[in-house]
Amino acid sequence: MTRRRIKLTLAFDGTLYSGWQRQRDQLTIQGILEEKIAVLTREPTALHGAGRTDAGVHALGMVAHFDIASALPCRAFKYGLNSMLPGGIRILQAEEVDFAFHARRSALGKCYFYQFCQAEIALPTDRLYWLKIKESVDFGLMEKCLPLIIGIHDFSSFEASGSRDKSRPGRGAVRQIYSARFEMKSVNKWRFTICGDGFLRHMVRNIVGTLLEVGQCRLTIDDFRDIVAAKNRAAAGPTAPAHGLFLEEIFYNSIPGKNGI
Amino acid sequence: MTRRRIKLTLAFDGTLYSGWQRQRDQLTIQGILEEKIAVLTREPTALHGAGRTDAGVHALGMVAHFDIASALPCRAFKYGLNSMLPGGIRILQAEEVDFAFHARRSALGKCYFYQFCQAEIALPTDRLYWLKIKESVDFGLMEKCLPLIIGIHDFSSFEASGSRDKSRPGRGAVRQIYSARFEMKSVNKWRFTICGDGFLRHMVRNIVGTLLEVGQCRLTIDDFRDIVAAKNRAAAGPTAPAHGLFLEEIFYNSIPGKNGI
Repeated sequence: MTRRRIKLTLAFDGTLYSGWQRQRDQLTIQGILEEKIAVLTREPTALHGAGRTDAGVHALGMVAHFDIASALPCRAFKYGLNSMLPGGIRILQAEEVDFAFHARRSALGKCYFYQFCQAEIALPTDRLYWLKIKESVDFGLMEKCLPLIIGIHDFSSFEASGSRDKSRPGRGAVRQIYSARFEMKSVNKWRFTICGDGFLRHMVRNIVGTLLEVGQCRLTIDDFRDIVAAKNRAAAGPTAPAHGLFLEEIFYNSIPGKNGI
Repeated sequence: MTRRRIKLTLAFDGTLYSGWQRQRDQLTIQGILEEKIAVLTREPTALHGAGRTDAGVHALGMVAHFDIASALPCRAFKYGLNSMLPGGIRILQAEEVDFAFHARRSALGKCYFYQFCQAEIALPTDRLYWLKIKESVDFGLMEKCLPLIIGIHDFSSFEASGSRDKSRPGRGAVRQIYSARFEMKSVNKWRFTICGDGFLRHMVRNIVGTLLEVGQCRLTIDDFRDIVAAKNRAAAGPTAPAHGLFLEEIFYNSIPGKNGI
């Protein structure tokens, strides 16, 4: 039987899940999707994600692929899976792709955003998707740090400790950041968007946590520069909570942020 | 012992609650608040809300008052209650007020807003606070209906059937709408805001449901005019789902929308 490769673009609310990666006795996005694909096609299958998101992190445009013998049309994957999935996970697109396509290896870049609100007391309807910051934050100071991370850098200072298999050959902690910016969403809400060729584990949350230290005047811009240069996780600020982070998009055809995206 | 009147301004995420009003064996905002106030003050107390919100409706600025002998400072009500309340309910302000103040009777007006997004598949992170509309909606047509509800009208067509005690004397279903408008929040998201001196049960949701029928060309603007004039619930469109609706603010000192609020 001919096998086909199906690419899924999907969104999820990370609130209720223990992250992307399948784990025994845990509700995970990959685990739930693999289970529903098997129900739909009656074939066990392995889903390959473009990356792993941590517990609590949301996604608007995660990508994954799987190979299957089933002759089901793509729309059956989209609508069939959505009819079985909980409301917290939705397939936005299902397409048949060439076997040359690989959700992780073919990715040219990813964009994440992180949402903050400044408030003494967070509105309950914001609590799942916005990090509440009590103290006033100087976004101008944080913006001045951004040129220090845009470009090609060794991001060891922002990598979760013990997260990478150092014996595996590769590019180490060197990543290219294409763009990083803050934008005001409303009177007390901001969004930080960062696009790059790849991200180390906890890298966005560690950058955000360290930027917030600058914004709250607990670190200077020079301290931030020294932290990047230190290539040492111990030098940087705390890891920002997961619930403010969204995986926005994964790029396969063009590099994000090169043209001001 | 001197009794005091405390005014609470509060916000809640209606997702998990069976509405405002205390009900046996149901999680309600009033029920939870009365329980926590009693724990804090060791006095049983009755909380008087500015109105009742339906199950699933959210609030950014609900107001309620209660009378108590406790000498606790107002900040103890605010921080003490917040430390005991679930994340879905937050006290934004606690103030001691004159006994002339009454959360419901002193209110001059209220503003609600209703959130829609137009999408084939709703993003999971929007599903709790935005009504998803699959078909394209003509907001221009909906806007043309708004002058037909602004001002003083008998809103019987938009009142939940069997909701009012007709034997109770009063102004019947006549209400004054100060302002009503649509605004675009992002490329496929809209917010409908309506302010008035008071709202009948399900009135905002029934207006929204009927406006959407116009926006989707299932009713004309003339039909909408006839529906208002009919003073008959059976004439109007369906009740829009609760989860898109937010009680935004209650006005005690000035009339909302008179100066373009």
